[in-house]
Amino acid sequence: MGKIARDQHLPAIAADAGLVLAATSSPNSPGVEGVPHFRTLEALLAEAEVDAVALCSSPQVRYGLAATAIAAGKHVFLEKPPGATLSEVAALEALAGAAGVTLFASWHSRYAAGVEPARAWLAGKRILGGRIVWREDVRHWHPGQAWIWEAGGLGVFDPGINALSIATRIWPRPLFLESATLSLPANRAAPIAADLTLRDATGTAMTMDLDWRQTGTQTWDITVETDGGMLALSSGGAVFTVPGETRHDEDREYPGLYRRFAELVEAGTSDVDIAPFRLVADAFLRGQRETVEAFED
Amino acid sequence: MGKIARDQHLPAIAADAGLVLAATSSPNSPGVEGVPHFRTLEALLAEAEVDAVALCSSPQVRYGLAATAIAAGKHVFLEKPPGATLSEVAALEALAGAAGVTLFASWHSRYAAGVEPARAWLAGKRILGGRIVWREDVRHWHPGQAWIWEAGGLGVFDPGINALSIATRIWPRPLFLESATLSLPANRAAPIAADLTLRDATGTAMTMDLDWRQTGTQTWDITVETDGGMLALSSGGAVFTVPGETRHDEDREYPGLYRRFAELVEAGTSDVDIAPFRLVADAFLRGQRETVEAFED
Repeated sequence: MGKIARDQHLPAIAADAGLVLAATSSPNSPGVEGVPHFRTLEALLAEAEVDAVALCSSPQVRYGLAATAIAAGKHVFLEKPPGATLSEVAALEALAGAAGVTLFASWHSRYAAGVEPARAWLAGKRILGGRIVWREDVRHWHPGQAWIWEAGGLGVFDPGINALSIATRIWPRPLFLESATLSLPANRAAPIAADLTLRDATGTAMTMDLDWRQTGTQTWDITVETDGGMLALSSGGAVFTVPGETRHDEDREYPGLYRRFAELVEAGTSDVDIAPFRLVADAFLRGQRETVEAFED
Repeated sequence: MGKIARDQHLPAIAADAGLVLAATSSPNSPGVEGVPHFRTLEALLAEAEVDAVALCSSPQVRYGLAATAIAAGKHVFLEKPPGATLSEVAALEALAGAAGVTLFASWHSRYAAGVEPARAWLAGKRILGGRIVWREDVRHWHPGQAWIWEAGGLGVFDPGINALSIATRIWPRPLFLESATLSLPANRAAPIAADLTLRDATGTAMTMDLDWRQTGTQTWDITVETDGGMLALSSGGAVFTVPGETRHDEDREYPGLYRRFAELVEAGTSDVDIAPFRLVADAFLRGQRETVEAFED
């Protein structure tokens, strides 16, 4: 019941005719007026009648909560990233499969308004190359959040994984990591900036410039050069621009995620696409590390 | 056509009635008396008649060679680890699937004589905990090999991934990484030692003590405590010991791999189990890093 739950999850659930908020749980935060609230997920599962659980907690504790919910026969919606490690997510998939419940690894940026138009537009083109520029001010977006800087925190890949979730959705072929440089502040265990080169089987490259030290204008842009001109997805995927056309449709990220989750539950299937997280793990596995200026909040 | 090809692959192919060594390629090494030899894989594919390609080169160049072989319609056998990154291996799987050829990510230690008996013995037991101790002398096994110490080299996980390939095979449930500490020499980019805790969905732990600084006796042991007593797999999986029984059957690692490969080709299927490599990537993603004494060859 932290910030993302209140800002995004509660309004999206309230707006979906197929979903009802039956109960909430949080060790510290308060609940919602008129809705049963519990201090632990265990208490919620014991006392409330729910079909599904949406987990909005930090990734470090997500596995345990998800395993508990699956063991109680509940469908599970995971905020991004779906866990603290790839092997944890694979273990959850096995549990959900054995229990016959839906597991949904959500990637909210994939539901930004420009993403599906971009995917459709690129499908017929010859791609010459792509570039992600994702630059924001960590002091503004994550003030005093020590956990994102610790080992196991993703550092600048916390926002960067949103770009990767879009790139792996719109690109018509699998992207793999070719090289990476991670910049680590002298006093921190997680990167504050990163440069990646991704490539696909045709040899075409997508580069990524990821930086948490940008003050002033924030940049969340993806551009793709094609034989039919340039595609630009800006403002985190919200604005779609191709030659002769710009579209900025209404934001439907979390409503889109919850509609997808409801459809998965109805269809009795799961959707656990690990591709964005796998590229991040590969960057930690293979990346060159360089030490940069210490970072103080 | 390096050391592993001559020591293991050539004898295993020669001993298998279903396989014939039709050609070899290597940029620097010589070939085999009486068998066509080429300087590049491209030249081999253009001139020799082969159904399948076994890649024994270092993981950094494996993707490009495998993609070339798949594009030529050949079945592909990958030495371990199957690539330099997880995303690369996923991309190869997609290519092999589209081309209708077999892709085999081989894990030779899984064919050590004690592994299948261990798997069968554990299947009916309640497991209380496990421990991997994998300690060897890097100066003896990898003298002067700079690449294993560079970013993208696996360091001590180069042998350690063999233990993980056994552990993920004999353990009856998926194992995920809970925590890791990586010890990096002050002058190197890859770990010389590591401590891991793996866990499964029942909460049972498997710990791993991995060290490249062991002189004298070398240790490649896995022990598992159960309600039926202790299982010990020693000498890298070759020796199987349970209460009242010790078995040390003949080494069949590479012959076993090649038989499996031939069966996959005949069945028209692939076998790409990424679990051991995923645990290594997770250790790099999530592990705490500590700096230890500089390492000089």
